[in-house]
Amino acid sequence: MSAYRRPRFLRGSGSSPGTADASRRSDSRPVRSPARGRTLPWNAGYAEIINAEKSEFNEDQAACGKLCIRRYEFGPEEDREWLTLCPEEFLTGHYWALFDGHGGPAAAILAANTLHSCLRRQLEAVVEGMVAAQPPMHLSGHCVCPSDPQFVEEKGIRAEDLVIGALESAFQECDEVIGRELEASGQVGGCTALVAVSLQGKLYVANAGDSRAILVRRDEIRPLSSEFTPETERQRIQHLAFVYPELLADEFTRLEFPRRLKGDDLGQKVLFRDHHMSGWSYKCVEKSDLKYPLIHGHGRQARLLGTLAVSRGLGDHQLRVLDTNIQLKPFLLSVPQVTVLDVDQLELQEEDVVVMATDGLWDVLSNEQVAWLVRSFLPGNREDAHRFSELAQMLIHSTQGKDDSPTGERQVSYDDVSVFVIPLNSQSQGGSGY
Amino acid sequence: MSAYRRPRFLRGSGSSPGTADASRRSDSRPVRSPARGRTLPWNAGYAEIINAEKSEFNEDQAACGKLCIRRYEFGPEEDREWLTLCPEEFLTGHYWALFDGHGGPAAAILAANTLHSCLRRQLEAVVEGMVAAQPPMHLSGHCVCPSDPQFVEEKGIRAEDLVIGALESAFQECDEVIGRELEASGQVGGCTALVAVSLQGKLYVANAGDSRAILVRRDEIRPLSSEFTPETERQRIQHLAFVYPELLADEFTRLEFPRRLKGDDLGQKVLFRDHHMSGWSYKCVEKSDLKYPLIHGHGRQARLLGTLAVSRGLGDHQLRVLDTNIQLKPFLLSVPQVTVLDVDQLELQEEDVVVMATDGLWDVLSNEQVAWLVRSFLPGNREDAHRFSELAQMLIHSTQGKDDSPTGERQVSYDDVSVFVIPLNSQSQGGSGY
Repeated sequence: MSAYRRPRFLRGSGSSPGTADASRRSDSRPVRSPARGRTLPWNAGYAEIINAEKSEFNEDQAACGKLCIRRYEFGPEEDREWLTLCPEEFLTGHYWALFDGHGGPAAAILAANTLHSCLRRQLEAVVEGMVAAQPPMHLSGHCVCPSDPQFVEEKGIRAEDLVIGALESAFQECDEVIGRELEASGQVGGCTALVAVSLQGKLYVANAGDSRAILVRRDEIRPLSSEFTPETERQRIQHLAFVYPELLADEFTRLEFPRRLKGDDLGQKVLFRDHHMSGWSYKCVEKSDLKYPLIHGHGRQARLLGTLAVSRGLGDHQLRVLDTNIQLKPFLLSVPQVTVLDVDQLELQEEDVVVMATDGLWDVLSNEQVAWLVRSFLPGNREDAHRFSELAQMLIHSTQGKDDSPTGERQVSYDDVSVFVIPLNSQSQGGSGY
Repeated sequence: MSAYRRPRFLRGSGSSPGTADASRRSDSRPVRSPARGRTLPWNAGYAEIINAEKSEFNEDQAACGKLCIRRYEFGPEEDREWLTLCPEEFLTGHYWALFDGHGGPAAAILAANTLHSCLRRQLEAVVEGMVAAQPPMHLSGHCVCPSDPQFVEEKGIRAEDLVIGALESAFQECDEVIGRELEASGQVGGCTALVAVSLQGKLYVANAGDSRAILVRRDEIRPLSSEFTPETERQRIQHLAFVYPELLADEFTRLEFPRRLKGDDLGQKVLFRDHHMSGWSYKCVEKSDLKYPLIHGHGRQARLLGTLAVSRGLGDHQLRVLDTNIQLKPFLLSVPQVTVLDVDQLELQEEDVVVMATDGLWDVLSNEQVAWLVRSFLPGNREDAHRFSELAQMLIHSTQGKDDSPTGERQVSYDDVSVFVIPLNSQSQGGSGY
C-alpha cells in the first residue's frame, strides 16, 4: 500500500510554458515535483502524486502555459519586422501536457522542456494558412492555377487540419530532439505524451501512449483520446514484424496465442491470430511457435517484446530487450492521434471540464466514476476560486490509501498519477481566439 | 442516359449456394444475367441491372444459399462417420454475396462460384470451437494446461471470433484460387466482395471493396460495412510505398497534394500529406514531387496508381499500370472487414431489413434515402409475398431513367447495380440457428 501524500498545488501566471522538474528524493519518503516556473492559465487545476512503491523518481512530468504564435506576413522586410513586434499580430492559445516516463524520468523531463517549443515552431510555419478563410494551396498566397481554391475545397482541407499536421510534426520533431539529447548525455528512457491545445475556439487533444483525456458535461461523457498499447496496436506491430522479420532476431514469434506455448502443445491445433486477422483461428503448433511472443500478456500486463507496456511515445531510442541487441524503437510511433473538440459549437455550461490524466488514474477509475466525482464536486463549490485544483486533488485522493469501502471493491493505484482539470467555460470566456 | 430495363426477379429454393452467370449481350441492348441455380432462402429480395453505357458485360455477380457445415466430432472413427450422416449434426446458416467486377467479369464469376466453398471449408475446420460454450485453446479438446479456459476467457475470445477468422481466411483462400484460375485460363480482372452470413443467431457482414450493407429499422439506420478505396486507405497505401519504394519504380510520388503539381509549383510551399499524417502541412516542392501521385483524384474519381478505384477485393493478380511493369496487387488487400450484428439481441419488427448493394446504388442514393424508400414501401405491402424482391427492384428503379424530379436534383446511375434486401424477421423465425 502506498503512503498517501497530499499533492502540492501549483499556481502561477506568465506567458511562456513552464515545466515541472523531477526532483530527487531528499529522504526515504516520496516527494512531489516542486513548482518552478509552471504556468496555469485561467483557473485550470493540476495535481500529482508519486508512489514510493513503484519508482524512486517521479516519472510523471507536466507542462502548461500560453502559446504565442508569431504571424509572418509575406511582404517587404520592414513590414514583417513591424508585425512581429505588434502584439495584435500574435495568435495565442493555451497548452497543457502530461508525460509519463518509463526507464527513468529523463525523456519525460526533456519532453516537458521541449515539446511546446516544437509545437510553436511548427504552428508558426503554417500560421498564414491557419488564419485564412481556407488554407491556400500555396503558403505564399501565390496562385499557380486559378482553380487551386477549388482543389483545396474538394479535399475538405480546413484550418484545423494544419493544426493537426503541426501537432503530428511537433511530436516527431520532439522525439528527434530527445533522441539526440539522451545520446549526448548518456541517459536513457522514454515517455508517453498527452497534449491539449486550445486555439481559435477549438481544443486539440494529441495522444501518444496510455494517458487519457475525457470531456465531462452534465449529460455527456466523451472520450477525447484513445490509448496506444501493444494490445490496441497489435495488428500494426505484427504487420511490421511480418515486413521486417529481422527485427525479431529469431528470438520472438509475431503470432498471438492465448498463452505462451510449450513443448506439450507441439503438433496440437491451438487458437492464434496473425497481423491480418481481427478474428481468431486454429493452427498446428510448430517449433517456431514456442518462441516468446512479440506481444505477450493481457490488459495492464501486456508487453511489447516482453519489455514495454505502451506502443507510442517519445524517447526509447536506445531501448533493447534485456541481454539482447533487439531494439524496441522500430515498433514505436511518436506520432499522436489528434481529436478536435469544437468548443465554440458546444453550448457550454459552468461545470463543463476536460479531465486529462496519466494511466495511474484510469487504472483504478472508469470514465463514469471520474465523471461522477466531477459532477458531485463542482456544483457545490462554485464560490471556491481553487475548485478545479481541489477537484484534481480529490481525483488523485480517490486512487490512494487503504481500501476503506464497505465492499472492499475500491481499487488503489501504486503508480504515479497526474491530473489536469481544464474548465471549458472560462476558456470560452478567456482570450483563446485569435 | 442509360435505357432502363426492368430487372428480372429470381426466386428458387435448394440447399446449396447458387451463382448468377454473366451473360454475353445477345443484341446491342443491355440484358440482365439469367437465373440458373441461384437460391434465395426465406423471402429475401434480389434485383440487378446492367447499364449499356459502361460495360459490355454485367460485371456485377451475386450468389446466395444455405450453408451446411459438417461437425466433426473427435472420437472413434465409426462415431464420426455416423455424425456426418446425421442431419442434426449439421450447423446451418445462410449466405448472400455481391461481387462487383472490373477489367471484365472473370474474377467476379470465379468469386461467385468459389467463395462459399472456401467459407464452408474454413468454418468446418473450426466448427468444434464454434459450437462449444467457449472456444477451447486446443481444437481437440485436449487440455495441456489446466488454466487454458481462463487464458481464453481473459483474451475475450468468443465463438463469433472464429467465424470472423473463417471469413478472413476464406476471402484470402478464394483470392488465391482466383489467381490460379485466371492465370491458367489467361483471363484478367478483379472484383469487390460483400458477403452476409447468418449463423447461430448472428449476421456477419464481410466487406472488401466499395459495396455497402446497411441495417434499416423503423427508428434506426446502422451501417454494417465501410468502404475500402484509395482515399479511405490512404495511410496504409502510402505506408506500404514508404516501406517498399521500389513498388513505385520512380514513376509515382507517394505524397498527396490537393492537385497534381507542375513545373510552376517548383520551389513553392504547397499543401501535402504523407503516410503518418492525418492533418495537412506545407512542403517546398522538389522535382520528385512532380511525378504522378500514388493516389490521385477525389471522391469517385480517386485512383490508385492512376488505375483502380478500390483498395480491397479479389483478383487483379496480373494488373499493371498501363504501359508499365508496375503492379497493383501489392497494394491491394483481399482480407475483409467483418461486422457482427447480434440479430437475437434485436427486438425485431416486421419491417427490419438489411440492404446490400454494389456502389452503383450508393453513388446516387444516400443511406437515408434508401431507408426512406424502405420505410415507404414495406408497411403498405405486407400481404405481398414478393415484397422484398419488389423493394429491391424499386431501389434499382430509383437509380435509373431520366431525371424527372421537379428540382432536377435526382441522380442517375450509369453503373451496374445489384441489390439484396434481407428481411431479418423471417430470419429469426427461420432456422438459421444450429
